[in-house]
Amino acid sequence: MVRKEQLRPGGRSARVQASVHQAVRALLARHDRAEITFPMIATEAGVTPSTLYRRWGELSELLADVAVERLRPDTPPTDTGTLRGDLEAWAEQIADEYASTPGQAMLRDVLAANASGEQAFQCCVYLREALDTLTLRAQLRGEFSPGTESLIDGVMAPIIYRILFLGARPDEAHVKALVSKALHGLA
Amino acid sequence: MVRKEQLRPGGRSARVQASVHQAVRALLARHDRAEITFPMIATEAGVTPSTLYRRWGELSELLADVAVERLRPDTPPTDTGTLRGDLEAWAEQIADEYASTPGQAMLRDVLAANASGEQAFQCCVYLREALDTLTLRAQLRGEFSPGTESLIDGVMAPIIYRILFLGARPDEAHVKALVSKALHGLA
Repeated sequence: MVRKEQLRPGGRSARVQASVHQAVRALLARHDRAEITFPMIATEAGVTPSTLYRRWGELSELLADVAVERLRPDTPPTDTGTLRGDLEAWAEQIADEYASTPGQAMLRDVLAANASGEQAFQCCVYLREALDTLTLRAQLRGEFSPGTESLIDGVMAPIIYRILFLGARPDEAHVKALVSKALHGLA
Repeated sequence: MVRKEQLRPGGRSARVQASVHQAVRALLARHDRAEITFPMIATEAGVTPSTLYRRWGELSELLADVAVERLRPDTPPTDTGTLRGDLEAWAEQIADEYASTPGQAMLRDVLAANASGEQAFQCCVYLREALDTLTLRAQLRGEFSPGTESLIDGVMAPIIYRILFLGARPDEAHVKALVSKALHGLA
């Protein structure tokens, strides 16, 4: 997987990126996703199409970049006082966001056949960072946590699998059962 | 989700479909996926492009149909004599197939942003049918099985999540641990 150059915040390249991302979000709000093209985005962003081709190569790569940026969490997961409560609240929030119509479109853009795979990886990094936060909180409270990888497998993977392949999130009882099973025997 | 007409095997429509699917598989073997177009497929299959537009609407829909057909299992899961053995063998096989380069491309085609979602649903049906078979075998042997939905959540979802988002399958020890956890406490 080729990592893109890190952008200097405020630099020219970062300003172009911000303007292009904003143009894509604006176009997605007004048009069907399949209608959007590099020339339309270039006009909306006030850059040349060749800037887009040079930087992103393919439309799917740019759409995946915009999607993963929108999937970045705005706030840390709520602190409810227990690991079980934190996990339930956070899993419910992710399930709601990812199962929404825009959420499903973003997930599919992130996983698009022609994208580099780097956005899908980044999407998983966001989930891991949140689970690391919950694990650290649990340790500070003296609670035992099964750890981030077990929680990815036991809670996040089933929720996201069901959204992707069945188009629907597991209900609240199902999410609670996943959390219980992931914490099972770890009192 | 709109279900497509059921095809009468051997009917004209089924013959067109078979010929188009074969043309797509042949083109995928010779060309980069991003280069393939409806006119190329029409030439290869000996049909008019309008046949393709009428039936599939968008290229992503046709590619998703071909991909899900290739993900259909050829054989029932191996009978090893125990549910644990059957699950380990079958999960290893799915992990190998889906994590291969063509397997990952098929999964991404099935989940493509512009596809109907019906192929992703069908892909999950294949996994469920195999797990139903394993559960039935376990019952006939007098073994207890946690059931298909628990096995989807506990074994298949984590494997597929890791392939999709991290581009790599869990290793054999990880697969064994997922199976153990899914069967845990169900002696």
